[in-house]
Amino acid sequence: MDCDVHISASDETQIVERLPEPFRSKGLYAPGRYGSAYVNPVGGFRGDAYPDDGMAGSEPALLKSQLLDELPIEYGIITGGICMSMVSHPNGRYAAAVCRAYNDWVVEEWTSTDDRLLASIGIAPQMPEASAEEIHRLGDHPDMVQVLFGSGTRVPLGQKDYWPIYRAAEAEGLPVGMHVGPKGAAGIGNSNNPAGHSSTYVEAHIHQQTNYYGQLASMVLEGVFEEFPDLTFVMIEGDFGWVPDAMWRMDRNWEAFREELPWLSMAPSEYVKRNVKFTTQPIPEPPEPGQLATLMEMIDAERTLMWSSDYPHWDGDYRPELLFRGVPEETKRAVLHDTAAELYGL
Amino acid sequence: MDCDVHISASDETQIVERLPEPFRSKGLYAPGRYGSAYVNPVGGFRGDAYPDDGMAGSEPALLKSQLLDELPIEYGIITGGICMSMVSHPNGRYAAAVCRAYNDWVVEEWTSTDDRLLASIGIAPQMPEASAEEIHRLGDHPDMVQVLFGSGTRVPLGQKDYWPIYRAAEAEGLPVGMHVGPKGAAGIGNSNNPAGHSSTYVEAHIHQQTNYYGQLASMVLEGVFEEFPDLTFVMIEGDFGWVPDAMWRMDRNWEAFREELPWLSMAPSEYVKRNVKFTTQPIPEPPEPGQLATLMEMIDAERTLMWSSDYPHWDGDYRPELLFRGVPEETKRAVLHDTAAELYGL
Repeated sequence: MDCDVHISASDETQIVERLPEPFRSKGLYAPGRYGSAYVNPVGGFRGDAYPDDGMAGSEPALLKSQLLDELPIEYGIITGGICMSMVSHPNGRYAAAVCRAYNDWVVEEWTSTDDRLLASIGIAPQMPEASAEEIHRLGDHPDMVQVLFGSGTRVPLGQKDYWPIYRAAEAEGLPVGMHVGPKGAAGIGNSNNPAGHSSTYVEAHIHQQTNYYGQLASMVLEGVFEEFPDLTFVMIEGDFGWVPDAMWRMDRNWEAFREELPWLSMAPSEYVKRNVKFTTQPIPEPPEPGQLATLMEMIDAERTLMWSSDYPHWDGDYRPELLFRGVPEETKRAVLHDTAAELYGL
Repeated sequence: MDCDVHISASDETQIVERLPEPFRSKGLYAPGRYGSAYVNPVGGFRGDAYPDDGMAGSEPALLKSQLLDELPIEYGIITGGICMSMVSHPNGRYAAAVCRAYNDWVVEEWTSTDDRLLASIGIAPQMPEASAEEIHRLGDHPDMVQVLFGSGTRVPLGQKDYWPIYRAAEAEGLPVGMHVGPKGAAGIGNSNNPAGHSSTYVEAHIHQQTNYYGQLASMVLEGVFEEFPDLTFVMIEGDFGWVPDAMWRMDRNWEAFREELPWLSMAPSEYVKRNVKFTTQPIPEPPEPGQLATLMEMIDAERTLMWSSDYPHWDGDYRPELLFRGVPEETKRAVLHDTAAELYGL
């Protein structure tokens, strides 16, 4: 089970033609897409993932042979694509329209071509009502197995603005996934870390996990999982080395100041272990291999961790067996297969 | 050795009267001080630390008896006070003037009253040239053992704007300390985490460490310790449970993208272990006591960690023996005494 597969459009007119006016004539434009403040100094994708005439990940046949056939993979869940940038688009109406067009394109051009390919309903979370509508529009489509948005919000994701999204997802029985989305790159939105806008790509890249910490704390401490106890929040491509300490720190502060958060009925770490999943890529790399196993124990990995390749990125994880030195066989099976199979009903 | 002692002024006119005009007639005003967006729901200070007629930590005799005599403490380094709020003051000239007045007040009213009390030269880092001047003005005063500023910057601390400060500190042989300063509370500056402005004090409090992560990454990756190899950066009250994972993530990204950072000559974690110190309060609280010892090993605690009480906060560490279950005797001695004694030349 691969919980993070990226695709792109070889021909963007396929998405643009699905947009209504007044957006169609504008084409696709998004923060962090062209003219981002941070440029990956070595390029992001595997050289062999580019088809002759397009972007890496834009050719279904190539993706199937390099990823699904080669590893092999039983199901791959599409997460990537233009909809993840929409979270930080200043024009919310446009962002919601792009997500809708993208979703139709994914079903028609990708998931319908192979039973192993599943996908996520992309939404623009700054438009909660429109997002809830989109979730209900596609919620019972058999190829759509979760709701998805980018991480680069202006307002933390736990706050009440967003609750119509969680209500709709819970009603449709779908987990809510978050994938890295642009942060601090658009001239709007928050800096990529609270100290300020970093100057280099490396720092911006490192602080993706800082952003994830912000979102996790907000989701837990604002009481989202108290209101929606059956909702699962999937944190994709956000690392998990930071999670044990985040749980300790949330628990300790909840203990000290719990009168400020009367809506919580249990310790923050209990919500994390009950309602949150993490994906493996990027995997933490402590200096001693045994420390990764310790880290996995600390987050209850046999219940919370799911494998992901991050294809077609060159720094993806394509050899899952390397990740599991010293990890019990049951945990390995849960991470590679069982947890995702259960979550996505496969 | 106590590396984090807070004081306040029982009578603010003592500081105000040391300000030049046009600032004196304005009095003391600072972001995060009055009208902060986040209010500690249970109050921050020990009830018994309030003298009859003033703020907690405003009476030298009480501080000496409750902290220096009672624990007992050989040397206590004053870090707190109004100067820490100045980092996020919109008026840099005013902020620098307040720091200067505060520094004179500290020497005249506090450190000169007891040989065990030492202090830090408070600066407003958004004013690098004025800060360098202040460092040189007081750099050879025997009671002033480090340079200090708050953590709530608008621009990350590693960037070149700030380098005159590090040049001056290195020239005076003083470490540079950072203490928690207000973040996202003033209507200017960055949100307290990259996901956005949190709604509660608990989240804002948790993300002090997120801000510290941003500052550490910036200091290391911008090359501050390459240019100033003898400089020590002391991260006070920022927790350290996040540091192992931060080192792993910085190292991995430096390995992958090192062409973007040609000014670094070694792995980020090596700079951390050579040039950075952390203080103990707040101490991480993993569920199993042995895990704290593991965490301390991961950060090379016998070289990087220094004990601090955070007096007069009620959640301070006043019983250091509780912190060290399973920790070797040499590490304990280094954390409680030797590392600080060497760093501050005591």
